[in-house]
Amino acid sequence: MQDKLQELNERLARFLDLTGVNGVLQWDQETYMPSGGAQARADQMATIEELRHRIVTDEAIGRLLDELAPYEAELDYDSDEAAMIRVARREYEKRVRVPADLVAEIQRTASLGGVVWQQARAENDWAKFEPLLAKMVDLKTQWAECFAPYDNIYDPLLDDYEPGITYDQINAVFQGLKPHLVALVEQIRERQDAVDDSVLRREYDEQTQYDLGREMVEKLGYDFNRGRIDTSEHPFTIGFGLYDVRITTRADRYYLPSSLMSTIHEGGHAIYEQNVAPHFYRTVLGTGASMSIHESQSRFYENIIGRSRPFWAYWFPRVQEAFPHLADVDLETFYRALNKSEPSLIRIDADEVTYGLHIILRFELENDLFNGRVKVEDLPREWNERMGEYLGVVPETDAQGVLQDIHWSQGYFGYFPDYLLGSIFSVQLWDAMRQDIPDVTAQIERGEFEGVTGWLTEKVHRHGVKYTLPELAERATGQPLTWEPYMAYLSEKFGEIYGLK
Amino acid sequence: MQDKLQELNERLARFLDLTGVNGVLQWDQETYMPSGGAQARADQMATIEELRHRIVTDEAIGRLLDELAPYEAELDYDSDEAAMIRVARREYEKRVRVPADLVAEIQRTASLGGVVWQQARAENDWAKFEPLLAKMVDLKTQWAECFAPYDNIYDPLLDDYEPGITYDQINAVFQGLKPHLVALVEQIRERQDAVDDSVLRREYDEQTQYDLGREMVEKLGYDFNRGRIDTSEHPFTIGFGLYDVRITTRADRYYLPSSLMSTIHEGGHAIYEQNVAPHFYRTVLGTGASMSIHESQSRFYENIIGRSRPFWAYWFPRVQEAFPHLADVDLETFYRALNKSEPSLIRIDADEVTYGLHIILRFELENDLFNGRVKVEDLPREWNERMGEYLGVVPETDAQGVLQDIHWSQGYFGYFPDYLLGSIFSVQLWDAMRQDIPDVTAQIERGEFEGVTGWLTEKVHRHGVKYTLPELAERATGQPLTWEPYMAYLSEKFGEIYGLK
Repeated sequence: MQDKLQELNERLARFLDLTGVNGVLQWDQETYMPSGGAQARADQMATIEELRHRIVTDEAIGRLLDELAPYEAELDYDSDEAAMIRVARREYEKRVRVPADLVAEIQRTASLGGVVWQQARAENDWAKFEPLLAKMVDLKTQWAECFAPYDNIYDPLLDDYEPGITYDQINAVFQGLKPHLVALVEQIRERQDAVDDSVLRREYDEQTQYDLGREMVEKLGYDFNRGRIDTSEHPFTIGFGLYDVRITTRADRYYLPSSLMSTIHEGGHAIYEQNVAPHFYRTVLGTGASMSIHESQSRFYENIIGRSRPFWAYWFPRVQEAFPHLADVDLETFYRALNKSEPSLIRIDADEVTYGLHIILRFELENDLFNGRVKVEDLPREWNERMGEYLGVVPETDAQGVLQDIHWSQGYFGYFPDYLLGSIFSVQLWDAMRQDIPDVTAQIERGEFEGVTGWLTEKVHRHGVKYTLPELAERATGQPLTWEPYMAYLSEKFGEIYGLK
Repeated sequence: MQDKLQELNERLARFLDLTGVNGVLQWDQETYMPSGGAQARADQMATIEELRHRIVTDEAIGRLLDELAPYEAELDYDSDEAAMIRVARREYEKRVRVPADLVAEIQRTASLGGVVWQQARAENDWAKFEPLLAKMVDLKTQWAECFAPYDNIYDPLLDDYEPGITYDQINAVFQGLKPHLVALVEQIRERQDAVDDSVLRREYDEQTQYDLGREMVEKLGYDFNRGRIDTSEHPFTIGFGLYDVRITTRADRYYLPSSLMSTIHEGGHAIYEQNVAPHFYRTVLGTGASMSIHESQSRFYENIIGRSRPFWAYWFPRVQEAFPHLADVDLETFYRALNKSEPSLIRIDADEVTYGLHIILRFELENDLFNGRVKVEDLPREWNERMGEYLGVVPETDAQGVLQDIHWSQGYFGYFPDYLLGSIFSVQLWDAMRQDIPDVTAQIERGEFEGVTGWLTEKVHRHGVKYTLPELAERATGQPLTWEPYMAYLSEKFGEIYGLK
């Protein structure tokens, strides 16, 4: 049986090599590729995608999985071998249901979609985007129907990014959280003048920002022998196995947190990937587990660590040294500025409190869209109405509203909720970490991050793809996924900053 | 039949996509990849190489080629369709003869070979390299034997880089040239003090060198919308189809020509690739034809243009502006310095006159090696003896001798002669160009390079892979490949510089 498992792993290693290859191609496309290279790149990526699909849906893999089933049943669920077979089966069974030409058509539409979306947003022209989006919704509906029967057609879409969790489960969490978030946003709005973030909007040399970001993520545990930082229009992390995990960032000369916080955010993703157990390299377990778990790491480093007082107790003097014009600012002013909360139109600029409502809006809208309660043509109106309802702000243009995110142009429906699930889980991790490391706050104040990253590696990173979010929540924190600690964290942090109650 | 040709092209397009993909992976490896990424990169490239081999040796391609043979016979030899079938057949018939596991073994040995060679050269340790080289010679002997019968076992090795030309043909050219080169080197040696190149060895800011190099290749015709320049340890050009052709360079703060001339050299390769007919994109014709023809272009731009008086008549004032400390130097001094000829140990630093002898030495040695007249263990001694005989200099270390080039560690036997064949052909092109464009020298003096690049595009670039070197020589210059014009060019240029006869 070990021979069969080895054969399975060898076949899948080639699939994983191609996943890495597509990663390199994408990284290059976003960083260094000359503009003329776009067509050739699309051809290369389509070919790789087709070969990947063919390798993983080869009937030999199905046969090996069948032969391994009795062996798997005898293995401990938590063993590496059981997890390898389980995850391989999940990938195989998912991909084998979808016809290759539908995969190719989605890929082609997504390539075109990126370009059309970019133009439509730049020109604030919803009509230009609508037909493409309608086509993508249709294709992804066909894709989801490959997984019938289901309770909700949105389930297979969600499952593609977050295995083992359904609409009903996510909805229960989000509906529990939503009224509390809306109430907190309202309370903060009444105390809007309590925080002034003008200090962050002075002039900050870009290169110095980049240098500081490097220093911070290196200190947090990012290994530059197995990574690098470049600039790109939208920051991202991409890993080709744990030995090469790269991040990108982008500085705003007149808004300090833009580059620093995105570097820490992407650094969180990258530290996770770099700390997957090395013996998982080139196996299906050798990467991050899911989008939510990934976001739990990036948002842990960005928000729980990176927007905390202890973190800046250590770093603010260094930032003042790098930017001497900050000499007149004290730590408390800086900390409060960095945590200013205010309803805004654009998700990626949202603070910790309002962020969740941006996500819930998209989650509900996607569910309504795929269940036929909202039509593609109604999306701009629905978007604006719900923004007014949840956040009290209404976009004046579609570019600032329904057109703001790239996701739908790529067919990434069911992806958004993972941002909030990750945020929620990150607080459960933080609570568990503080129990295990009572002086963790003092460590952070001293600029010592080995405790934090070591704990996360032990509980989360090293396991790679082994566990789903519900499984990992139980194993890492002893609790199921639950929103209450997240809301308590927000209430406490922002209650203190804004002097609520 | 057009359907069958289309099916053939579609199958091969996927092969070409993967060729481009491996190019991106290699480019990244040499420019930006973190050191830790080496293992994953080797895995990715091995998987792509295996898939490439599998796609191009698919029996469906053999069947299509058989079915297309009668159609091909009716087509005009110079037609695009005939050339596509002909080149596809050449690729297929070559690859299908070699067992996949031998291809894989050579690839693995080459990956290891690069590392071992680098260490051996750094430590001047021939013994460390010898076993690997012996293995590679053995593997490439097996590879060549797949092509039996042959007149000379070296022929299939040569053919892999330069289709349609044999050892006997190359040897006739080189043996004609050799005594004249040796004599010219000897004459120049007696007038060694006639040229002083100390002006090139002042201090030159690296970034200014890079900026000047960019300016020059852009003016020569390199399109930055479809390319870019980065730095790497060894300069190279890599193209992923004509829409994305990149070059690299490397500056030496204390030797001005190092970066400028290598940028122009690589620019020549890149301009060639960028000017292949666009309708050849994603077909087997859509790249440079062969190593010799490629070198004919790079060495044309580097030497015939880039080391000429008219070129510097235009550029030297610009260089003086960039490096004000050159104000005391006149054009003639600069031109002569740039063309100083002196026997030296390292091929890549050799001037135009001595360069050919470095190549002839390697060509003869490789032929003796594969015909069993020289053993791997004898290479250091043979190398040093022949260096003394041809160039009058003997390496004191193997690092400066037999270990200097990466080629053998990669299994690139039969590649070296193309550098000299390209140089020889470049002069034939220059003679033909001067007949067609009588005022070309005046154009160059005015910094107008559209005439030069336009002529090369018409005669060489646009044809892509369509013609072999002998075919292209006839079509572009009306002459077979011949060494006499090359020797006449060297004698005239260096006779004038050194005041010979």
